[in-house]
Amino acid sequence: MDNMIIFSMPENMQLTKSLADKLKIEIGIAEFHSFPDGETYVRIESDVKDKAILLICSLDHPNNKICPLLFMARTLKALGAKKIYLVSPYLPYMRQDKQFKPGEAVTSALFAQLLSGFIDHLITIDPHLHRIKHLSEIYSIPTTTLHATKLVATWIKNNVDSPFIIGPDEESEQWVSLVAKEVNASYAIIKKTRYGDRDVKITVPEINDTSKTPVLVDDIISTGTSMIMAIEQLLLRNFKNPICIVVHALFDQKVEENLMRAGAKQIVSCNTIVNPSNQIDVSDLIIEGIKA
Amino acid sequence: MDNMIIFSMPENMQLTKSLADKLKIEIGIAEFHSFPDGETYVRIESDVKDKAILLICSLDHPNNKICPLLFMARTLKALGAKKIYLVSPYLPYMRQDKQFKPGEAVTSALFAQLLSGFIDHLITIDPHLHRIKHLSEIYSIPTTTLHATKLVATWIKNNVDSPFIIGPDEESEQWVSLVAKEVNASYAIIKKTRYGDRDVKITVPEINDTSKTPVLVDDIISTGTSMIMAIEQLLLRNFKNPICIVVHALFDQKVEENLMRAGAKQIVSCNTIVNPSNQIDVSDLIIEGIKA
Repeated sequence: MDNMIIFSMPENMQLTKSLADKLKIEIGIAEFHSFPDGETYVRIESDVKDKAILLICSLDHPNNKICPLLFMARTLKALGAKKIYLVSPYLPYMRQDKQFKPGEAVTSALFAQLLSGFIDHLITIDPHLHRIKHLSEIYSIPTTTLHATKLVATWIKNNVDSPFIIGPDEESEQWVSLVAKEVNASYAIIKKTRYGDRDVKITVPEINDTSKTPVLVDDIISTGTSMIMAIEQLLLRNFKNPICIVVHALFDQKVEENLMRAGAKQIVSCNTIVNPSNQIDVSDLIIEGIKA
Repeated sequence: MDNMIIFSMPENMQLTKSLADKLKIEIGIAEFHSFPDGETYVRIESDVKDKAILLICSLDHPNNKICPLLFMARTLKALGAKKIYLVSPYLPYMRQDKQFKPGEAVTSALFAQLLSGFIDHLITIDPHLHRIKHLSEIYSIPTTTLHATKLVATWIKNNVDSPFIIGPDEESEQWVSLVAKEVNASYAIIKKTRYGDRDVKITVPEINDTSKTPVLVDDIISTGTSMIMAIEQLLLRNFKNPICIVVHALFDQKVEENLMRAGAKQIVSCNTIVNPSNQIDVSDLIIEGIKA
């Protein structure tokens, strides 16, 4: 970590401080200001000449963050920074990874090209990989993909008595199976069959042992629709109120209220996106990625 | 205009329709959608293969518009479009054109590099040129700079009896002198001397003929501070309530109310930025630029 300095983009100072403490590196001073006309002012006060830069910016709600991030990265380089490692614990634009209809913008690739144009290395946690199997298919810069599986499993082991892990839909199986293995618990996946925009059939696997605590696990909650359906189905089947664990808390307070109203016992997330539900700290995981 | 098609980015359909009618070209169909997580979906329905594209997007409050614009431009190209002309009647990020303090991002140059990376030609109206004398100093793509001076002058000739043109600060002289010449009216420039952040001395030139209608002219109103000071000084000197004319109405309703409360008789702008004060149509001016 010689000759490395860490900078936080707006709203990421807590994670930045945690990383700086653990890595024993200097936090760089930068000033960000938004003018009434919507333009952004950026000024870097610290000396960055010949230094490697860790730039912390969780890219949830990404559109508004691109100009400030680009200004920051290019100015760091203009001031002599050697290499910019962007730590974006949450990576957006991973869902539109192909043209479902002709004429669609394949935003996962386009966003990757954009980022690749002004940073040197991307470090992220559990990107929503689906048809794209590895970030190198869309990023032209080196990338480091980290997984929060063990952190989630550890949280469950420390906080839940006799857990039973459940995935709210088939796409979640990739996370759920790994978490269950780490926890040494059984798991089940809820299957959704879509017959139309509003006609979705839910199949809950036969689970007999309702004495266990159901723990719903997914990579992202945004609107919460799948999670709410899953909670309702579990309660219908006489399960205890489930705990919902998510890596990326991409939801707002209203969605959290909806989940609690549906019957969630608790909502827990990693601090990849700043949210009141953050209970699982990813800083040690990021440090592993940086050291590798 | 053979083989040309025009597209509107969100919120620019009125100007787009006006240009399409006058140029007698097809309006391309594109779908834009914002997801709750802040990501943007873009789909182009019209056939754009081998066509030249006029893309209309006024870049006020620019940060949020860059991702959708980039997705649109890159997808047009992927679908075979030959050349993309971006018509941004208002060009942002023109004020930070040098480092006033060490470490500052020179955003005018950085924003220009960004745009130059995904469009082929920029057409704009009265960019706020100050230390940069020509857009080619910062844009690596061809640019066309148009001037609203004649349109503003025509509006004054058609709507104001015995006008007297006034610039609210020294920087406005470049617009004010040209407008006054076209109108064939006299003009004066208010001088501000800044002694500190809150200590500004206003010097209003000696103007004797208070029977004339004062017309304040500037390129941009954003916070309205200079304009309000100018209005107050004119009223103190027994002038009639001044008319405020601006090319780019970068202000919100609150600023408009402040201007009216200070004593503006009327606020008039060009439709380079969508605003209730739009009274001067720039579509013919843009068409001149396109044809050239």
